[in-house]
Amino acid sequence: MDNKALYKLSYGVFMLSTKAGDKVNGCITNTCMQVANSPTRVAISVLNTNYTCDLIKESGVFALSVLDETVTFETIKYFGFQSGRDVDKMSELILPTDINGVPYMGWQTCAVISCRVVSQTDLGSHMLFVAEVEDAQVINEHAPLTYADYQNRVKPKPEKKLEDRKIIGWRCKICKYVYEGSELPADYVCPLCGHGAEDFEPIYG
Amino acid sequence: MDNKALYKLSYGVFMLSTKAGDKVNGCITNTCMQVANSPTRVAISVLNTNYTCDLIKESGVFALSVLDETVTFETIKYFGFQSGRDVDKMSELILPTDINGVPYMGWQTCAVISCRVVSQTDLGSHMLFVAEVEDAQVINEHAPLTYADYQNRVKPKPEKKLEDRKIIGWRCKICKYVYEGSELPADYVCPLCGHGAEDFEPIYG
Repeated sequence: MDNKALYKLSYGVFMLSTKAGDKVNGCITNTCMQVANSPTRVAISVLNTNYTCDLIKESGVFALSVLDETVTFETIKYFGFQSGRDVDKMSELILPTDINGVPYMGWQTCAVISCRVVSQTDLGSHMLFVAEVEDAQVINEHAPLTYADYQNRVKPKPEKKLEDRKIIGWRCKICKYVYEGSELPADYVCPLCGHGAEDFEPIYG
Repeated sequence: MDNKALYKLSYGVFMLSTKAGDKVNGCITNTCMQVANSPTRVAISVLNTNYTCDLIKESGVFALSVLDETVTFETIKYFGFQSGRDVDKMSELILPTDINGVPYMGWQTCAVISCRVVSQTDLGSHMLFVAEVEDAQVINEHAPLTYADYQNRVKPKPEKKLEDRKIIGWRCKICKYVYEGSELPADYVCPLCGHGAEDFEPIYG
């Protein structure tokens, strides 16, 4: 079995939020689909260890802000790269609220879908919620962000680490003479200007 | 509630197939997502009136051929625009089969995922199946087709119907004189060549 085959499934990207009493939180998720149209139902899957998951179990309601193609990595980072257990993500924001009082995103978001849980199934790593769509609004006409688009365009590419780079030569900082080879002997002396190995800098491939 | 908000959810496009005894069928669907990774589970939603849905309930297994960006409308039409109740779609094809003996697509398909149903929930219009992934293979490196891409690029645009087009003028077929206006009076006579309304043809906007 090749797990990479599962990477071929297409998804959107969402800010999933909820409010249970005074506790409000939101996270980034990619798993939501409409699963019935009569009555209108969606299904979402949320990591069981996720704080938003705990709060949805408690509140029974959630809002899905459908992120659009204008989303910035800062937004993903804000909601997705820190836990609501450590940081009150909503305290620094004034967000609009849906019919259930759940805050949703009014920017970088093409639609919001307000849902009430009708069933939940524990699948081990994740909780599967099936929910009634109680309200839904189009916010703008931008195309929704796909998960592939997030990976390819929005998410910063990791910088090549220094230790991963290969040294292909050494350059004399004094006269620019180039020594070809990955390892410069410690007693090497520049044949042009006579400076030693300590005056050479590496050239990466 | 604006149902168009639900159109902002992103999906892939799949050929969903199954085999129950001698009965084999496949259809086109857009609703599949991975819902857990430990253990590996996917969820699909299938129209209850769909023949493939009946067969999956009987067999408990299915294969998802993840259609790729090279897919043609003919493929969608073949599996998606005719029912297995009327036509034996598989009899004219020789398809590879997965570990459960379920045929899948070996062309226009970037991956195949073989599943065994672990639970099914009747949601009215649709049946929601949660399934164990028993096998998964990458077939090619093409990008998966998204449902938006299918709608925008693969699905033929409907031709503008004659009755939907607006008449903005009339041209004399004899001398090409143009009468500007949507309605040509029945007793109109061409001021250039003297021919009557019957010799004029409409000009569409």
